[in-house]
Amino acid sequence: MCLIVSDRPLVAAGVYTTNQIVAAPVVLSRSRTPSATVRAVVTNSGNANACTGEQGDADAKAMCSQLASLVGCEDTDVLVMSTGVIGQLLPMEKVKSGIDQCFGRLASNETSFVEAAEAIRTTDNARKTESRDMNLDGKTIRIAAMAKGAGMIAPNMATMLSVICTDASIAPDEAKAILTRVANASFNRVSVDGHTSTNDTLLLLASGDEAPLSGDSLCLFEKELTELAIHLAKQLVADGEGATHVMQIHVSGASNDKSAETIAKTIAASPLVKCAITGGDPNWGRIVSAAGYAGEPMQPAKVSLRVCEELIYENGSPRKFDAASLSATMKSNNEVAVDLCVGDGKGTATYWSSDLTTDYVRFNSEYTT
Amino acid sequence: MCLIVSDRPLVAAGVYTTNQIVAAPVVLSRSRTPSATVRAVVTNSGNANACTGEQGDADAKAMCSQLASLVGCEDTDVLVMSTGVIGQLLPMEKVKSGIDQCFGRLASNETSFVEAAEAIRTTDNARKTESRDMNLDGKTIRIAAMAKGAGMIAPNMATMLSVICTDASIAPDEAKAILTRVANASFNRVSVDGHTSTNDTLLLLASGDEAPLSGDSLCLFEKELTELAIHLAKQLVADGEGATHVMQIHVSGASNDKSAETIAKTIAASPLVKCAITGGDPNWGRIVSAAGYAGEPMQPAKVSLRVCEELIYENGSPRKFDAASLSATMKSNNEVAVDLCVGDGKGTATYWSSDLTTDYVRFNSEYTT
Repeated sequence: MCLIVSDRPLVAAGVYTTNQIVAAPVVLSRSRTPSATVRAVVTNSGNANACTGEQGDADAKAMCSQLASLVGCEDTDVLVMSTGVIGQLLPMEKVKSGIDQCFGRLASNETSFVEAAEAIRTTDNARKTESRDMNLDGKTIRIAAMAKGAGMIAPNMATMLSVICTDASIAPDEAKAILTRVANASFNRVSVDGHTSTNDTLLLLASGDEAPLSGDSLCLFEKELTELAIHLAKQLVADGEGATHVMQIHVSGASNDKSAETIAKTIAASPLVKCAITGGDPNWGRIVSAAGYAGEPMQPAKVSLRVCEELIYENGSPRKFDAASLSATMKSNNEVAVDLCVGDGKGTATYWSSDLTTDYVRFNSEYTT
Repeated sequence: MCLIVSDRPLVAAGVYTTNQIVAAPVVLSRSRTPSATVRAVVTNSGNANACTGEQGDADAKAMCSQLASLVGCEDTDVLVMSTGVIGQLLPMEKVKSGIDQCFGRLASNETSFVEAAEAIRTTDNARKTESRDMNLDGKTIRIAAMAKGAGMIAPNMATMLSVICTDASIAPDEAKAILTRVANASFNRVSVDGHTSTNDTLLLLASGDEAPLSGDSLCLFEKELTELAIHLAKQLVADGEGATHVMQIHVSGASNDKSAETIAKTIAASPLVKCAITGGDPNWGRIVSAAGYAGEPMQPAKVSLRVCEELIYENGSPRKFDAASLSATMKSNNEVAVDLCVGDGKGTATYWSSDLTTDYVRFNSEYTT
């Protein structure tokens, strides 16, 4: 269990899973954001409260209601997130006692923040946190964020749970618009296994009570938030279940950015490409052929590919390269750069994916039974 | 190397990969079908002749030209297929000598057909053949078919090589139309790894010289051909790289058949679903959530799921079931049936997929290097 509680009303915006099978906590939190009066967020891990019918809806509401009583606010000013196994009812006695216990331990120091980030882990090997200080209009603004997620990770916002807290002052509608753009440039650009979860939630909580940021300051804030979110998103991929490498896929020359993103996402999702990265195998035909079935415009005679900065396919023809040497480079780097040019268009996109290992398969063959 | 040579002109139709990165042999064969004058097909395995630029085009033409000289026909009456590693030039000296050797060994018995089916294997553990006799208009018609494919298998026609031979008489345009429908119901409904190859080719060769089949006889022929192609397609999945189970996914209640197919295909491609099948793990939330991100209309409150005929999710709510017993059933069957109803529409589709094992990952991490 993890509680985030504020002593003053927060501006809150959320971006949620696009999966049509939506977990009860997502339905509830989605209906309560954007808001200018949020006071608390309650999160449990180990059980997703998804595919749980009417009882699941009632349980999500009960979690908020219990925390609202403790905080002394309206039920509707509490948000809820859940993550874990799908299709099992929440053990509500345990959840109830957990909320009480956590409320008794609330504190505003760094240790508590770290403990909260630990609490939302499921199959994550490590907690994911990021924080920044920035100067805006002569004032220092702080941003602190946490995320969880290692499996069932694929874009379409926001394939994990993440909360970004800031003491900046932002209007609710601006918060929602910024968060959507931030998600599209970060959490929506990563994939572990191409499986979009039922519970993905990204929240932005802003506590500032001065005049909301605007103009250039708001732009700088968004830029900082985007960089922070990309760092957090890359932590998810690096900690992907069983992952040994992060693949950074940059597609250029596409007809537009959306098209470049689709091509990059298709490469990122190919098990054959992922396995090649796992083995440090410069079997580049898998990368080019994955781009070819993405369903986006390409100019085959203008396709070029670099792996770890080495040009191995140029304008539709293979180039001689030292496979053993490139393989050694791929194996010795945690991050493998794939740069694919698909034509002479202006569209570009960057995407991050984990590789596919026997550990991923072993782990996911033995998850519930 | 594999040669198929006819002593009379054949009606020939082809269905080819939809990948935009198309191998040289596909470009050439595609330009030569449908036809009423094909005399031969030359196939090599071990090298895909894909992403090989102008030299690749010249090599594919040279293969056809050499065989045309031996057969004594026009170059344009020879088709060519290649399968194997992408991005390497064909070893043409070896190919040339292989064509000569194979031509010297041509024969019209069953042993030769089986040897030909063996010759086109790459990572296949077993050869794939199917044959049928059927009576049409008082005459016995024979169909004999071969296929290869175990990896880089995903629909969008025709994710492997396959040749279907028959002594029936069919008009070229009918052959093309029938073959497209057959592919959509069989080879386009299977997936090993969701990766559409650059070389997929399905050919129908018909040698009959009587009046072409028509009316009811043509319908019966198509039905038989469809059944045969489904058997052949399922052989690909059962022999998927590292596969231990075949998953048969039936989606019903969708808004139309195309929508049902997209949902079934999305479930088939999820590594999490595949791993659950590998482990005999009734972690059914993965199946329902995969359907939810397929991007097709669903009615969440009317979703029901059966695994191995056991109803475990009904109208949006979970049902109690004996997980240990269902797991034992999944483990002891080579084929696991997944039946998902997504609403009250009339759309249905059936799809076949292999599971995902550590052997698939191990094999594909070590393929070229």
